Amino acid sequence: MSRLDAYATPWTDVARHLAEGEGLALLPFGALEQHGPQLPLGTDTATATAVAERIADRLDALLLPPVHYGDTWNNAGYPGTVSLSPETVTAIAVDIGRSLAASGARALVVVNGDWGNRQPLYTAVRRLNAERILPAIALDYPGMDDAIAQVRTSPGAAPGLNHAEEVETSIMLAVEPQHVHPERYAAEYPVFPSDFGTRPMQLHPFSPSGVFGDPSHATAEKGERILAATVEGSLAVLADFISGLPAR
Amino acid sequence: MSRLDAYATPWTDVARHLAEGEGLALLPFGALEQHGPQLPLGTDTATATAVAERIADRLDALLLPPVHYGDTWNNAGYPGTVSLSPETVTAIAVDIGRSLAASGARALVVVNGDWGNRQPLYTAVRRLNAERILPAIALDYPGMDDAIAQVRTSPGAAPGLNHAEEVETSIMLAVEPQHVHPERYAAEYPVFPSDFGTRPMQLHPFSPSGVFGDPSHATAEKGERILAATVEGSLAVLADFISGLPAR
Amino acid sequence: MSRLDAYATPWTDVARHLAEGEGLALLPFGALEQHGPQLPLGTDTATATAVAERIADRLDALLLPPVHYGDTWNNAGYPGTVSLSPETVTAIAVDIGRSLAASGARALVVVNGDWGNRQPLYTAVRRLNAERILPAIALDYPGMDDAIAQVRTSPGAAPGLNHAEEVETSIMLAVEPQHVHPERYAAEYPVFPSDFGTRPMQLHPFSPSGVFGDPSHATAEKGERILAATVEGSLAVLADFISGLPAR
Amino acid sequence: MSRLDAYATPWTDVARHLAEGEGLALLPFGALEQHGPQLPLGTDTATATAVAERIADRLDALLLPPVHYGDTWNNAGYPGTVSLSPETVTAIAVDIGRSLAASGARALVVVNGDWGNRQPLYTAVRRLNAERILPAIALDYPGMDDAIAQVRTSPGAAPGLNHAEEVETSIMLAVEPQHVHPERYAAEYPVFPSDFGTRPMQLHPFSPSGVFGDPSHATAEKGERILAATVEGSLAVLADFISGLPAR
Amino acid sequence: MSRLDAYATPWTDVARHLAEGEGLALLPFGALEQHGPQLPLGTDTATATAVAERIADRLDALLLPPVHYGDTWNNAGYPGTVSLSPETVTAIAVDIGRSLAASGARALVVVNGDWGNRQPLYTAVRRLNAERILPAIALDYPGMDDAIAQVRTSPGAAPGLNHAEEVETSIMLAVEPQHVHPERYAAEYPVFPSDFGTRPMQLHPFSPSGVFGDPSHATAEKGERILAATVEGSLAVLADFISGLPAR
Amino acid sequence: MSRLDAYATPWTDVARHLAEGEGLALLPFGALEQHGPQLPLGTDTATATAVAERIADRLDALLLPPVHYGDTWNNAGYPGTVSLSPETVTAIAVDIGRSLAASGARALVVVNGDWGNRQPLYTAVRRLNAERILPAIALDYPGMDDAIAQVRTSPGAAPGLNHAEEVETSIMLAVEPQHVHPERYAAEYPVFPSDFGTRPMQLHPFSPSGVFGDPSHATAEKGERILAATVEGSLAVLADFISGLPAR
Repeated sequence: MSRLDAYATPWTDVARHLAEGEGLALLPFGALEQHGPQLPLGTDTATATAVAERIADRLDALLLPPVHYGDTWNNAGYPGTVSLSPETVTAIAVDIGRSLAASGARALVVVNGDWGNRQPLYTAVRRLNAERILPAIALDYPGMDDAIAQVRTSPGAAPGLNHAEEVETSIMLAVEPQHVHPERYAAEYPVFPSDFGTRPMQLHPFSPSGVFGDPSHATAEKGERILAATVEGSLAVLADFISGLPAR
Repeated sequence: MSRLDAYATPWTDVARHLAEGEGLALLPFGALEQHGPQLPLGTDTATATAVAERIADRLDALLLPPVHYGDTWNNAGYPGTVSLSPETVTAIAVDIGRSLAASGARALVVVNGDWGNRQPLYTAVRRLNAERILPAIALDYPGMDDAIAQVRTSPGAAPGLNHAEEVETSIMLAVEPQHVHPERYAAEYPVFPSDFGTRPMQLHPFSPSGVFGDPSHATAEKGERILAATVEGSLAVLADFISGLPAR
Repeated sequence: MSRLDAYATPWTDVARHLAEGEGLALLPFGALEQHGPQLPLGTDTATATAVAERIADRLDALLLPPVHYGDTWNNAGYPGTVSLSPETVTAIAVDIGRSLAASGARALVVVNGDWGNRQPLYTAVRRLNAERILPAIALDYPGMDDAIAQVRTSPGAAPGLNHAEEVETSIMLAVEPQHVHPERYAAEYPVFPSDFGTRPMQLHPFSPSGVFGDPSHATAEKGERILAATVEGSLAVLADFISGLPAR
Repeated sequence: MSRLDAYATPWTDVARHLAEGEGLALLPFGALEQHGPQLPLGTDTATATAVAERIADRLDALLLPPVHYGDTWNNAGYPGTVSLSPETVTAIAVDIGRSLAASGARALVVVNGDWGNRQPLYTAVRRLNAERILPAIALDYPGMDDAIAQVRTSPGAAPGLNHAEEVETSIMLAVEPQHVHPERYAAEYPVFPSDFGTRPMQLHPFSPSGVFGDPSHATAEKGERILAATVEGSLAVLADFISGLPAR
Repeated sequence: MSRLDAYATPWTDVARHLAEGEGLALLPFGALEQHGPQLPLGTDTATATAVAERIADRLDALLLPPVHYGDTWNNAGYPGTVSLSPETVTAIAVDIGRSLAASGARALVVVNGDWGNRQPLYTAVRRLNAERILPAIALDYPGMDDAIAQVRTSPGAAPGLNHAEEVETSIMLAVEPQHVHPERYAAEYPVFPSDFGTRPMQLHPFSPSGVFGDPSHATAEKGERILAATVEGSLAVLADFISGLPAR
Repeated sequence: MSRLDAYATPWTDVARHLAEGEGLALLPFGALEQHGPQLPLGTDTATATAVAERIADRLDALLLPPVHYGDTWNNAGYPGTVSLSPETVTAIAVDIGRSLAASGARALVVVNGDWGNRQPLYTAVRRLNAERILPAIALDYPGMDDAIAQVRTSPGAAPGLNHAEEVETSIMLAVEPQHVHPERYAAEYPVFPSDFGTRPMQLHPFSPSGVFGDPSHATAEKGERILAATVEGSLAVLADFISGLPAR
């Protein structure tokens, strides 16, 4: 067996897969967000989709088509970024969960690719669970931070901030190299105030290019290692999640 | 010139395109909806994307990545269909319009691929215009009905109902033939009550397969003719829409 | 038997009627909307009420008092028009349906008299049915278009647009002739852009008077024929609707 | 001059009246609520309309058609009562106020006929004023209590509770005598708990008939005196309200 | 036995108290509202808390910590007043009621200290009861008006308006004398328009100091008598409320 | 100078302080949440208030009375916990910010004492800033983690989880020792699944007592050191926040 792509599959096959298989549905939740002059707006969606595909392969799960739009208010000062409100992000995930429950799915696994989606997806997942609509979990790339610490050779711009630099460029070189512009690599290390990260801030005053770090250290191999570790980290978390699901 | 794909393009190029070009953004709005045993769940998204791509090519417009989920309550009785509430569909389109306005776009053109999205997208477009957020229009395939009348050789199941039959199968043969299952073609002509179409009804009680008509008459050439006419019909409507936009 | 007017009847009689009769409640949903210099603001309410009265007579139904206000954003540019938001229209119909269910009614039939109410009433009816609050249907004058095609002698201003012209003036001559001002009849045939009807537009830029067509061809007899056909068309649709109601 | 009835008047006349006159719009806000076996469900609407008509006559104001539905949760246990939620009542009044402001009205005067509407209309009026949408006031029959104290000859069922007894029956004998059923007069004096009136309670557990007092003392003359005093009380309040309106 | 203060008590003791005792929870609902130059912003909260403490003592009830913020729009024109919207006040009380129901409480008694909270708390209590979440009641100081009539020696500024004058100053002298500034006592008797009290009005145009009456007549003894009468009035109302609760 | 307590101060003094001083308002946001058998339900409010008092002392700020209720869904399975929905928490903070802006405050500083409030307060602060209502920041005890790492002598139950154990008990021994029950100290080290912390989970299935760690190592001195470090960490963050405020 292997994953089933909902987008490309008739309902009759999807219905059978949900009824006879594990009943897991994976939803990549991305964003249309600036990632510097060298990476495309779809970077977060591409990454979340790649991670979700690999997880779905390993779990024989149903792969849903990605949500291309997220809450990316932090980057909304860069033209081309298209941001949803947090309430809309929450509503999308809750509606999808409710619909999957009616389709006979056992659980929804959201693979989140955008920092700004964390809070609204947390809210959605809590509601899906608390109101007993459908067991759900939102994964924020478990295992990725450790892998990053191992592979990165350029410093980060701020703790926990990996945006349009070595890490994300490496991942895109692994996933969609045709959309990467290496000739535009240019490092940027903004000076942040001490309250950066402690309150909601938009990023465009700090970096004109949208880069936060140094993309020139990126390689596809680093990206591949990061992705692989993220998939393993996700599977480890999901093992417990799945074992805790009610039996059919 | 030609269209610019937002998904695959860095923000710097998109910002320049919006500032220097026509400033039009095209959004394909699809659905994950049953289309019988022979067509994939992504049929509406695939069709809306194909139409939007061609329009964007002709208008040098920015093509946004599709929304893969819509309000498809009518088909929600078929497992695998994943439906959003109408309020969520409206919110997505309004949020995208608001964000595009902040990015310097001059107008949003939604190419709607799903019948159930009509009302919530109408509401969204009205709000975008009435509250002067951004000039917007939602296209429901202008010109398609005439083209269908010319090419179809099998009867429709009900007036205005083209679902998973000759028409939609022809379009998918033109757009994504690899996702069509001709070996599963099977006509279905349900008996409808006289109040069908006059009030909200779900479709699954009428057709076990989800087919409404006869897909066996489908050909890629018919699909191509329907698509071409829809693109021309859309461009005709957009000519007036664009000429009515405020000058920059 | 005959219809029962809720406005003029004590609750004890209404309760008995709902319990012992068919249990149908008819709600005329109108608008306070400009209809040119020759017709009153209450035209849509008057028409919907007349149709609802006749249907209620034929079905021994409970006739509710009309809702005098609707979503008439399209005409909001003419002073005197008073418009509700679509959300408010939906809320009114849902609340009434919920209350009727608690009163023992079997179904709600909304007779809609205003184009702008179509979408919000569709949303309301879908919710009433989907959430199993009360079986409901909203009638948008079934049968009226055919009758219009037979009686009208002046051209329409645009396909499907019958506003303050021969048709509506005829109906008001049949229903409330004392509120019609024949001395003010003045035809107006605006020039519309090609995208008229494809997106939300307000009407006042197109016709200073609010007339769209030629009221001078109006006669009470034409109005009577249109009304009679609309009542028959409504009864035909309702026959199936009623036969599909759960038995008591 | 005299009042102008919006329902029966073309927009052109209404627009002129609003522009050249005082610019006051009166809205009777009623309810479809049980009033015992002897009075019709429309009693509150009939009363509010009668009061509003007389005020409008005195002020040369625009009289809007009544809202026939209100928040009548307290009586929702009697079948036939049709209640809106408080949020819907608020939304109706706010929407109407917003629309009147766009039509050039100077102020909205709501004549409230239903106890349950008091709180949602207060909320609406506060919003209309606080957000500077339109100056507005909701009248809860000023002057009526004093008049009642003078004319009533039967005791009330509870302080401040005049429901379907001598007072309301007298008013309806003055306003719509054809809808009163004197042969059904039957007094009812429920025993109330001491916390009655201190918290939200529904009325049906206390009076099977819906009468709270003794309708047999009702006369049209008493009703007329109550109405006349209420109109005078309203005009006194409105004198200050109007004098405080911003000059045109 | 005596009251239990939730703020200062571990959950284990509270859980036992709710399970084994009467199961009543008392919530003082205050406001941060101007009370002239001589009384603190917390006056309403202090008063409601004092009343709630005494009631809780008498009923062996659970005393919840106060809500320090209310809807005090009427006083929002005085800097320092901090007002919530009515929707937020309603939401707080409904959420607390829902949570108490899950904790095993039998009923919620809100002791309201702020005029502006009356309507939103009424809405909350109605929802808690109507949706059968938890039996609830909101007390607006029953018995206080009679006690005021007996003790006051200075006239009120308007009927029913006791704000920052003899009455409230007396209560604060009894409850928190350390926060009263007698050296600032200064009477103020504004001239009100005749429509005062008939519609939503803010108070700051009428009294620059925020005083409405004469605080110089205040004594702690008067305050104590008012408080004692309010507690007795509350207990009388609660006796019936409690006797009407479903048995455990 | 020193802090000003809004609760205990007349509006006239508060208005002068806001106008002439720094214009900072501090809001302790707590919760009524279980903290084991040895600590009171008000622990989070007590801690946030203590921190806020010390910050306000150092900054000559206005100290607002605490919000005693928060979003504490994670602990809602322990009776006595009283939780608000996240939407209500957000609404409270936004309303308070809006009201402070009208009072002339320059900024709102929320001192958050409850983990569950983090997301809804983040949403509130983002809205206050993004909609330019009032500059605002929510502090989640900056500097506390480092101090904890230095003083704790018992292991934590899980990374980042300090609940009703050595840390919180130490803080309460420093702040409100009279409400601590040392005779009830009992360690609890639950076994957590590997997906703990990755998705919304309620805590009561893991620890019957509500303790997560070992309170017996608690001392007032440890608590004092933690508080002092938290105050210093907060002041460091606030230094940049304040320097970034628009000048008056």
